[in-house]
Amino acid sequence: MDKTLIFGHKNPDTDTICSAIVYADLKRQLGVPVEAVRLGSLNPETEFVLDYFKVEAPRLVETVSNETKQVILVDHNERQQSANDIDQVQVVEVIDHHRIANFETSGPLYYRAEPVGCTATILLKLFKEKGVAIRKEIAGLMVSSIISDTLLLKSPTCTPEDEAAIKELAEIARVDIQDYGLQMLKAGANLRDKRIDELVNLDAKEFQMGNYKVMIAQVNAIDTSDVLDRQAELEASLKQIIADKGLDLFLFVVTDILNSDSVGVALGSVAGAVEKAYNVKLENNKALLKGVVSRKKQIVPIMTDTLANYQA
Amino acid sequence: MDKTLIFGHKNPDTDTICSAIVYADLKRQLGVPVEAVRLGSLNPETEFVLDYFKVEAPRLVETVSNETKQVILVDHNERQQSANDIDQVQVVEVIDHHRIANFETSGPLYYRAEPVGCTATILLKLFKEKGVAIRKEIAGLMVSSIISDTLLLKSPTCTPEDEAAIKELAEIARVDIQDYGLQMLKAGANLRDKRIDELVNLDAKEFQMGNYKVMIAQVNAIDTSDVLDRQAELEASLKQIIADKGLDLFLFVVTDILNSDSVGVALGSVAGAVEKAYNVKLENNKALLKGVVSRKKQIVPIMTDTLANYQA
Repeated sequence: MDKTLIFGHKNPDTDTICSAIVYADLKRQLGVPVEAVRLGSLNPETEFVLDYFKVEAPRLVETVSNETKQVILVDHNERQQSANDIDQVQVVEVIDHHRIANFETSGPLYYRAEPVGCTATILLKLFKEKGVAIRKEIAGLMVSSIISDTLLLKSPTCTPEDEAAIKELAEIARVDIQDYGLQMLKAGANLRDKRIDELVNLDAKEFQMGNYKVMIAQVNAIDTSDVLDRQAELEASLKQIIADKGLDLFLFVVTDILNSDSVGVALGSVAGAVEKAYNVKLENNKALLKGVVSRKKQIVPIMTDTLANYQA
Repeated sequence: MDKTLIFGHKNPDTDTICSAIVYADLKRQLGVPVEAVRLGSLNPETEFVLDYFKVEAPRLVETVSNETKQVILVDHNERQQSANDIDQVQVVEVIDHHRIANFETSGPLYYRAEPVGCTATILLKLFKEKGVAIRKEIAGLMVSSIISDTLLLKSPTCTPEDEAAIKELAEIARVDIQDYGLQMLKAGANLRDKRIDELVNLDAKEFQMGNYKVMIAQVNAIDTSDVLDRQAELEASLKQIIADKGLDLFLFVVTDILNSDSVGVALGSVAGAVEKAYNVKLENNKALLKGVVSRKKQIVPIMTDTLANYQA
């Protein structure tokens, strides 16, 4: 039998990479032949995490149907965020914490989504339900996922379940949440040394919203000027992607992880929808999005609703 | 706060009605204000079940957005099988055991699907995970759901998890599975006294398959001639529904629950797809579908695949 491949979304972040590794670990302990893979390069935050806990990165793949018939998705379900040939394989399981959209199967499957801050919080439940103990380094990856997705428990996506989970897991991993968390976030938030073309792809996700094709990218910064000082170069890069992919909107969000605000740079034919959604004025194509730190909770739903009936 | 409404699919069967009642019972014990409702008339099998365990039927509703903003779906997710105004409310949870299709949310939700024979089997897990005890009559409804969906454990949809669940639940409900199960199935399988226009709607579900709009109805029979003796009247009724709903195919399946076979009556512009899917010849618009008893496992996936690239 072919191995079932387990993977998260394109432009992988820490939760997507770690959840693939963690769920593969659980499945193997249950006797299921699986392998964790990834659909893109590791970001610096995730590199820090894997290095810290001495865990090997999942193998990079371009396509999946050339090596398996069955896959398990973690941390995503929308097909445009998944493997390019996702329609050629059977999705047998999904473990996720996002909305469900652009996802369809021809037969029944195991689908476990919960409205929590992080996939790892759901995976902790699965370990418990199956009665499997969690090893130190696996717990470390799960702690890191929760820190990353909830910005050290400060994001509005963070739930009491995530808080309880990280406490339990930090004890197994033997890390101090605050101390380790700041180290980890800072490793990912030094943007000055990153090229603009790297930044725009670091954590970009594509969405179909009403009749519009939308890309929303987010980067975490200690100092937002690390990116915004290079706005002209940034806009050139966004325009190129808009043209290449036929996008109607590219919203590039720079999140200030210390002050919990974001600056949005919006380009494309329906950039005005950002003004309507947040009741702001785009000046020089950008606007402060006060208190916005979560793409999932504070950007995707409001942009989806705004674009449902939007006329440019 | 409005009550969250919990309901199963249109043309409700025993699992859909009982799962709404059972999950509402669990939610209320957890302190969540909910009410089970239903989207259609009870079938004779379900009437037998509610009568046997002395449980009141959920309230019949036409629409849901007039009384609540939030709903929980059990035993279905596809919007054409749900409330007519499902797009006007927020789906906060889904507990299901079917494929996922025509389902989309703007935000995260709790979604629990497992590839088991019956929603009740998943609900048993939820009671355990929450540490809530199951009362006798609630266990009785869950036993009935499993019997109904698995045709007394004989359907290929039945899994070891369903078998374990029904044993555990039958002890709480204090019923003999075989004895009670046959009584229950027979109560639903006496089709001679049913009018044709009742039979075609009893358990009909609509699907989008490729470019085609498909209705698949299934009835369980002790004696298939109870229906097939009235084929002319049946076809007139199917043709009327095809015209009214603009269907490309109506597949009406009469399942012989004693011999575990079915007869399919197929009408519509792509009725030929049934011949292709099962390698049979429709004679007088009908064909024996040897060993087919499960719409979910033996009809929907194969018809979906066949119609994906089908030319009439």
